Amino acid sequence: MKKVDCPLCIDDGGICLVRTKQYRIVAPREPEFLGLIRVIWNDHVVEMTDLEISPRNDFMRAVYFVEESVRQMMHPDKINLASLGNVVPHLHWHIIPRWLDDSYFPLPIWGQRQREISAEKVSQRQSDEQLLMRHIQEQQLEG
Amino acid sequence: MKKVDCPLCIDDGGICLVRTKQYRIVAPREPEFLGLIRVIWNDHVVEMTDLEISPRNDFMRAVYFVEESVRQMMHPDKINLASLGNVVPHLHWHIIPRWLDDSYFPLPIWGQRQREISAEKVSQRQSDEQLLMRHIQEQQLEG
Repeated sequence: MKKVDCPLCIDDGGICLVRTKQYRIVAPREPEFLGLIRVIWNDHVVEMTDLEISPRNDFMRAVYFVEESVRQMMHPDKINLASLGNVVPHLHWHIIPRWLDDSYFPLPIWGQRQREISAEKVSQRQSDEQLLMRHIQEQQLEG
Repeated sequence: MKKVDCPLCIDDGGICLVRTKQYRIVAPREPEFLGLIRVIWNDHVVEMTDLEISPRNDFMRAVYFVEESVRQMMHPDKINLASLGNVVPHLHWHIIPRWLDDSYFPLPIWGQRQREISAEKVSQRQSDEQLLMRHIQEQQLEG
């Protein structure tokens, strides 16, 4: 089911790297959050516990696959996982690589900006993000 | 494995409502975030993808059970799920009931405070939180 006024029903929400019947894996390409990936349920569903057990498990397996990929390709100090949806109540996960020296650490990325990242690190993470996107695209996911 | 300088290795982190071999369900009783529940892995593990598949699934089943309980007992407008661990890198989930009129909505609870909640609503949510805690305590969870 789609909802006519929901941004995640009418648009992929970024570059779609993987699309299954149930969900998609999207690179939003937000310059401030390099390596951030979203896993988005295709239908307009609001909460994890609105899903049946089997599709919910498929969805989380995709989140874990992305977490592993982000760890492997972006070398973060920490992973943040979040399903919030206060602004867009359409079920989606944020998989966010975090570094001790990133712009918001140790705050969540929704907190207040703490610092600038060096141009050298931005450049490194931009090229790592390219590899991450390719790595995810090459994966054969089912569900 | 425990880590001597980790607050979630040396302390439950709130009122422990359920304790299994692998994880515990805790009410931190933070007055500003009524109905907030945490599910905390007992051993010192950092990321979801550090867990084996079967215990990871047990852990998420507890998160879904808490989400269902929070929805049923606290009647929120939205649920926020998050596993961050930037400050305390010991695997734990926040299950957070959100209301359109809560202090931070639509921002994540780590954002900037938006408003005060009426005393009447605080009082209602305090009594709902008591029922929520009892409801979770009565559950027989395995894992």
